[in-house]
Amino acid sequence: MSVTAAAGFSAAGVVCGLKSTGKKDFAMVRNLGPLKSVAAVFTSNRCKANPILWSQQVMADPVVEAIVLNSGGANCYTGARGFQTTHATAEAVAERLGVSAGDVLVCSTGLIGEQLDLDKLKTGVWDSGLEVLSDAGTSEQAGIDAAHAIMTTDSVPKMSTSTGAGYTIGGMAKGAGMLAPGLATMLVVITTDAVLTSEQLDTALRAATRVTFDRLDSDGCMSTNDQVTLMASGASGVEPELAEFTARLTELCRDLAIQLQKDAEGASHNIHITVTGAASEDDAVDVARTVSRSNLFKAAIFGNDPNWGRVLAAVGTSSAVFDPYNIDVSFNGVAVCTAGEPDQSRELVDLTPREVDIQIELHSGTETATIWTNDLTHDYVHENSAYAS
Amino acid sequence: MSVTAAAGFSAAGVVCGLKSTGKKDFAMVRNLGPLKSVAAVFTSNRCKANPILWSQQVMADPVVEAIVLNSGGANCYTGARGFQTTHATAEAVAERLGVSAGDVLVCSTGLIGEQLDLDKLKTGVWDSGLEVLSDAGTSEQAGIDAAHAIMTTDSVPKMSTSTGAGYTIGGMAKGAGMLAPGLATMLVVITTDAVLTSEQLDTALRAATRVTFDRLDSDGCMSTNDQVTLMASGASGVEPELAEFTARLTELCRDLAIQLQKDAEGASHNIHITVTGAASEDDAVDVARTVSRSNLFKAAIFGNDPNWGRVLAAVGTSSAVFDPYNIDVSFNGVAVCTAGEPDQSRELVDLTPREVDIQIELHSGTETATIWTNDLTHDYVHENSAYAS
Repeated sequence: MSVTAAAGFSAAGVVCGLKSTGKKDFAMVRNLGPLKSVAAVFTSNRCKANPILWSQQVMADPVVEAIVLNSGGANCYTGARGFQTTHATAEAVAERLGVSAGDVLVCSTGLIGEQLDLDKLKTGVWDSGLEVLSDAGTSEQAGIDAAHAIMTTDSVPKMSTSTGAGYTIGGMAKGAGMLAPGLATMLVVITTDAVLTSEQLDTALRAATRVTFDRLDSDGCMSTNDQVTLMASGASGVEPELAEFTARLTELCRDLAIQLQKDAEGASHNIHITVTGAASEDDAVDVARTVSRSNLFKAAIFGNDPNWGRVLAAVGTSSAVFDPYNIDVSFNGVAVCTAGEPDQSRELVDLTPREVDIQIELHSGTETATIWTNDLTHDYVHENSAYAS
Repeated sequence: MSVTAAAGFSAAGVVCGLKSTGKKDFAMVRNLGPLKSVAAVFTSNRCKANPILWSQQVMADPVVEAIVLNSGGANCYTGARGFQTTHATAEAVAERLGVSAGDVLVCSTGLIGEQLDLDKLKTGVWDSGLEVLSDAGTSEQAGIDAAHAIMTTDSVPKMSTSTGAGYTIGGMAKGAGMLAPGLATMLVVITTDAVLTSEQLDTALRAATRVTFDRLDSDGCMSTNDQVTLMASGASGVEPELAEFTARLTELCRDLAIQLQKDAEGASHNIHITVTGAASEDDAVDVARTVSRSNLFKAAIFGNDPNWGRVLAAVGTSSAVFDPYNIDVSFNGVAVCTAGEPDQSRELVDLTPREVDIQIELHSGTETATIWTNDLTHDYVHENSAYAS
């Protein structure tokens, strides 16, 4: 039930007309308090969309009353006019809710390089405001509606909730393509009624995203609009241990990230690439991510072909510490390569299940990391050759 | 007419049985002298195939009598036994030609992780030796046969010749997938009858590959077996100016690289990504290569979709010097983005021709570079999901 699972939040998802399909395309999440704590992480793409530029300004003072999100357009590479559109959207929200525009986050997702229609956005603000200001805004359905309104090529909404001792965390996410977050990812809104300061939220959120959304690399393409926002209302009155809250938040982020992986555009396999025996965690991530970005490896998995040579060819382009002739590789538990030589027959590997487990042992240390990725399919090519039309 | 265009070389391409199709799969090129100068550049992939390890040893003393190349297997990640196979192949060539095994280069291409059949290789050595030792070995047809014998998924052989003042350069290349060379590329053999030392050849070859094969990035996947070899026989008796020879060699390498691009697996577009106004040549290459590796950009081109937002989203993940809000992008001459804002309508762009020209102006300096790449197509996915079978 998404972002309204936690007490002290209302939400809405409405149709404002940005999507040509007539589906929901505008969401609002409002923090009813008493606390207005917030943390956010943003894409590390140097080409940032206008809503990212706006939201980074808002976060200079970590108090947030509401966040609005539109699908149907990224508002990226739209120049000064595009920034004005984002600013005017925040002003409209501020007026609607009686708050300051400087406390309103804005997120956008969709095609890059097209202006958003401000009149449609204002319609979205008005209609979502109507719900958010009413009792209906705190319902389970309101959270579900918001999760639907941020979908683009997603086939299902992504929602997750987690209940601690006296407090709750709820979240929603969107993202199916351009799915290779750096620092932050996609559009994600997480709410909690725990009593936590913005600084505590920031610590917890960075720890959680580092090992969840940042380990998702579906297609190697980092978005210009990624943003993960965590808001706390304090409405439960419960102040959890930060470590315990972080662990629970991390689990919720992992759940949302895996939901994103499972719904990645055109994918027919969910691939988990685990590197063990690395000299450092960075090395483990580097090797796993490099393999996850090999089109030849990804196409082979689509063809149910345990072509482990393509794994090693990719590993060889990483900068991690390893001995090229002392690497082990297994596909779904079958040790196809041991110490750099063929071991068990590749014919023993069954890649027909959707879940694929690749293990790479570097014999260079004790660190480990897993990257979640997908295969390269006809459907991926089809969806992404026709996206703008 | 490939490697026999230059005087002082004989060649052969024969069937030794490594390819299940029964097509030619073993080539030999012999330097008849009087000079035996040679230069070679190798893949920078850290996971190097056994023939690369062998050839790097041979090049410690830059005198080469012959090079043999097999398709039908990469002999990579085949351990000590695989290295012995390469060594034994060189020994067989040495015995056949009456030369030292330490003067015999070996190249292999095909599937990684499978042992090569040494008996078949020895058959290849014997049969190709027969032709190379005869007058027929210096014929035009012998060079064409050799170019055919090194093909894997290539649909056409790649050959080029260039004639200077009294001397000739000839070359052949193979490569259709795993086409993202670093330092060297694919399998390429170039011969010349010019009088040049190994040191001069090395200078010329590194200068030529840096701006030709190293600018080809079809699918972002670097091979474990890439090798470019340049041999000089001195048979023309002509000693060219090194600068003039290098320019001619560069032009020949560019011709072969473009032939590789045009025959890339499954491609439906040949894309030239030119970055101008860069602070350094490295920056220009970095930006162009980053765009060339964006699956979303490549899939859009397949769909004839001028989705320039995907170009900028990729540029934003590079580490080059630029101002994200002062970039110009054009597709086939249509300025779709100027100073970071939409300019001419994307509907004016016609992407139906096979040749696509992307221009990215960074306004950060005067350096420029072009990367040659291809689109991401259904056929690419199909070919690479079925390669091992």
